[in-house]
Amino acid sequence: MNTEPIMVKMALDAWYTQVKRTDELFTELTDEQLLKEVAPGRNRGVYLLGHLVAVHDRMRPLLGFGEPLHPELYAPFIEQADTKKDMGTTTNDLRLWWKEVNSGLADNFSKLSTDAWFQRHSSVSEEDFAKEPHRNKLNLVMNRTNHLTSHLGQLIFLRTKETGS
Amino acid sequence: MNTEPIMVKMALDAWYTQVKRTDELFTELTDEQLLKEVAPGRNRGVYLLGHLVAVHDRMRPLLGFGEPLHPELYAPFIEQADTKKDMGTTTNDLRLWWKEVNSGLADNFSKLSTDAWFQRHSSVSEEDFAKEPHRNKLNLVMNRTNHLTSHLGQLIFLRTKETGS
Repeated sequence: MNTEPIMVKMALDAWYTQVKRTDELFTELTDEQLLKEVAPGRNRGVYLLGHLVAVHDRMRPLLGFGEPLHPELYAPFIEQADTKKDMGTTTNDLRLWWKEVNSGLADNFSKLSTDAWFQRHSSVSEEDFAKEPHRNKLNLVMNRTNHLTSHLGQLIFLRTKETGS
Repeated sequence: MNTEPIMVKMALDAWYTQVKRTDELFTELTDEQLLKEVAPGRNRGVYLLGHLVAVHDRMRPLLGFGEPLHPELYAPFIEQADTKKDMGTTTNDLRLWWKEVNSGLADNFSKLSTDAWFQRHSSVSEEDFAKEPHRNKLNLVMNRTNHLTSHLGQLIFLRTKETGS
């Protein structure tokens, strides 16, 4: 049995499952709910939305899909913590970019061959990859899936308690 | 290149990374901190600790490692929501069992051959597995890694704000 395509399916299924769950949550939450902190003194929903867009957008160069679509999000949503003030980007734009970035990744994912998934991602040198062949593109997606899941676990606190878990 | 051992390493590395992070957090948090809700009206730390022990313990039968070590945790920590009262188990016992269950899994993981990781887990029938060969033991570990990460993202809110993120 050739397990390589199976492994790609396992990792991508997990990615798409968590993206879909997060997407449904963002659709459900109002702009007003997103402006609230997920827990007292913690990040606001809108910051985590921008953070996830920025982190997913940076998967493009790492996976060889091209430059980030919204490089201006790097400073406010990755380098800097939540200022709890207007971040210079509207919630509506972040909502649109969340869909745009994930949909662009999905297009690129669908074009990648099984072999390509087991090639290095661009933050690993050829020399390091020879010693650590697990640092491939599929592994990057698995790591980002866990990153997303961690923040999704926080974002569900923005739901009203009747429907949250 | 035979990528199967690489795939097993990718999935297990992710599991061990998240177990270690959670383990460090539980070590850092006092019993008093664990008795607090992770966010207003949400689960207490001690409930999530019991929940993670119970869910990881149930990986044993699913992966063919034997019966759960603490089946009595299933009702209070998986079937039922957090009662916000004494759950009939001390925090200290839950702390010990968290280490016991994960360490037992690690022992069993280390004995599993690469081929065995791509065999079905016990909640999938042979018939379904023939159609859906991605529902293997390694996939179960990947799913449980995401489950753990989701709750770890919530548990870090129990840290004092100076050190939390």
